[in-house]
Amino acid sequence: MTDPSRLALVPFVSVADMMRLVHHIGLETVLTELAAEIEADFRRWESFDKTPRVASHSDVGVIELMPTSDGSFYGFKYVNGHPKNMKEGLQTVTAFGLLADVSTGYPVLLSEMTILTALRTAATSAMAAKHLAPKNATTLAIIGNGAQSEFQALAFKAVNGITEVRLYDIDRSATEKCARNLAGKGLTVVPCRSAEEAIEGAQIITTCTADKQYATILSDNMVGRGVHINAIGGDCPGKTELARAILDRSDIFVEYPPQTRVEGEIQQLDADHPVKELWQVITGAVPGRADADAITLFDGVGFAIEDFSALRYVHGRLRDSGHFLELDMIADPDEPRDLFGMLMRAG
Amino acid sequence: MTDPSRLALVPFVSVADMMRLVHHIGLETVLTELAAEIEADFRRWESFDKTPRVASHSDVGVIELMPTSDGSFYGFKYVNGHPKNMKEGLQTVTAFGLLADVSTGYPVLLSEMTILTALRTAATSAMAAKHLAPKNATTLAIIGNGAQSEFQALAFKAVNGITEVRLYDIDRSATEKCARNLAGKGLTVVPCRSAEEAIEGAQIITTCTADKQYATILSDNMVGRGVHINAIGGDCPGKTELARAILDRSDIFVEYPPQTRVEGEIQQLDADHPVKELWQVITGAVPGRADADAITLFDGVGFAIEDFSALRYVHGRLRDSGHFLELDMIADPDEPRDLFGMLMRAG
Repeated sequence: MTDPSRLALVPFVSVADMMRLVHHIGLETVLTELAAEIEADFRRWESFDKTPRVASHSDVGVIELMPTSDGSFYGFKYVNGHPKNMKEGLQTVTAFGLLADVSTGYPVLLSEMTILTALRTAATSAMAAKHLAPKNATTLAIIGNGAQSEFQALAFKAVNGITEVRLYDIDRSATEKCARNLAGKGLTVVPCRSAEEAIEGAQIITTCTADKQYATILSDNMVGRGVHINAIGGDCPGKTELARAILDRSDIFVEYPPQTRVEGEIQQLDADHPVKELWQVITGAVPGRADADAITLFDGVGFAIEDFSALRYVHGRLRDSGHFLELDMIADPDEPRDLFGMLMRAG
Repeated sequence: MTDPSRLALVPFVSVADMMRLVHHIGLETVLTELAAEIEADFRRWESFDKTPRVASHSDVGVIELMPTSDGSFYGFKYVNGHPKNMKEGLQTVTAFGLLADVSTGYPVLLSEMTILTALRTAATSAMAAKHLAPKNATTLAIIGNGAQSEFQALAFKAVNGITEVRLYDIDRSATEKCARNLAGKGLTVVPCRSAEEAIEGAQIITTCTADKQYATILSDNMVGRGVHINAIGGDCPGKTELARAILDRSDIFVEYPPQTRVEGEIQQLDADHPVKELWQVITGAVPGRADADAITLFDGVGFAIEDFSALRYVHGRLRDSGHFLELDMIADPDEPRDLFGMLMRAG
């Protein structure tokens, strides 16, 4: 049997290679560059094929496919969400993704996306806050100190100039883990005993808890004027983090309304409750923060275009970093119609 | 950096490994066993999550995701269709697929599916014909002698007892390629100069041409009483192979009506034109062939459950054949919430 041709080979970025790539470039640089890539793609929002993600729900979790295309590249992500996994020593969220050439349909990149999703989620949060948070914000509260929390902290440091993070989790060991990981990273880190304590003096509040239920991580009386809330933990039907009264007092910004209406905090509201689309704030078509007293809420659920931006970013850095394998994923017979002959000659 | 844990590793069947697997088991055995797996899954049709495939169309082709789940396993296929690829030395259709454990969301198999799709398409056609074709059919006409044709011929031999195949393609070299590949495989192979000549004496007619257009591969006067038509080339919007008048004279059987109404031959018909679901024929809920004079038409477009059956078949045979790699695709930190710590320790 002859070796597969070049066309048959798809670059694959494993978990180990993704970690090498991040260290090669530098974590805060990756977060900053990703935020810029995602912002650039939000700016050309109308050039993308958009569809709500395709979800398969079970009693214990969800498996989703998130496709999009800009006409040149096509990308999709596979991602699961299984809150109970953590207790079994497994990741709540794992993911991988693929980028393909629209003109041929051939894949050009397969990549792990568990790490990459944490990076792009943090970059998206920071990018949204750049447009919505009060000017000169210095303090970030993070409620929920799981796998996303450190990425959030460093993205807000790198993109928004945050200098202090205040941490709270119902599980004290999660807060300790997060504080330990952030030590020496150039942030003042304050572990807190309650959500109330964590939000003291914070201009930005990130909620990123994992339970699949209607929860009240923030109650109405906890949220004062002028705050920006980055609510990213409520991201599937039946999973929310904020008291409804907070939503009624907030200017709400979302990625893609047809998806967020089903999955985000706004699933608590009527289907016609006014929300603003983040991409329109970025293009200037819609105002962002009205004044210093406004409560802005980014109801982030994660959208396919963010994954697309992240995959394209990795694809663009591949040759430079050299950290990938090549997989024989695409059958490529010498004569395209002779798939059978290729199979027979391999015998 | 430590090696990835077992949980991080996903078995990957490359194109080369798929070819080894097929030769390890034997091609006709694979086709027969696949037909049985698909039939078994059609028999429990109601236990599957079903959705029309998620398609992204461009001027030159389509990229599709085809997910399904039976509650224990979740599977999806990525597949493109680019008819113009062939002229550029590329495959018209390439594919890969993934099987995951519903209870954890963790992938358990990544596999090439260009070859596997050809196998499952042929196995599905033969399985449908087992229930719909006239008894004791011996002769198969294949119009369109591209990448699918030899697989079709051998599936009908293995599953339906076909002894003669009659070949026609507008491109003579495709017919010659197909005839050459089928030489010595236990079939009488008759290359023909026209579609009319090919269908002479055939009880079963397979149409599997690749052009993305409304074509008339079979005109009304060519189709006599008692024939079974296996129409698998018309499989996306704007792509059909049969004259509409043939549809009006046929009993039409489909996989999943919401998908076939858009993609199959029946896109030419009114949305309420009666069709029968193949799975109901298999369970006995709906009659198949009415009598010896009926024209039966399997309007096959390919459905996600067939890919699911094929992926599960490969997954079940992996350990026996040993032909796979293990990919470090899933981030698996020692402490599930400590994704960041894993990344930092890799630095």
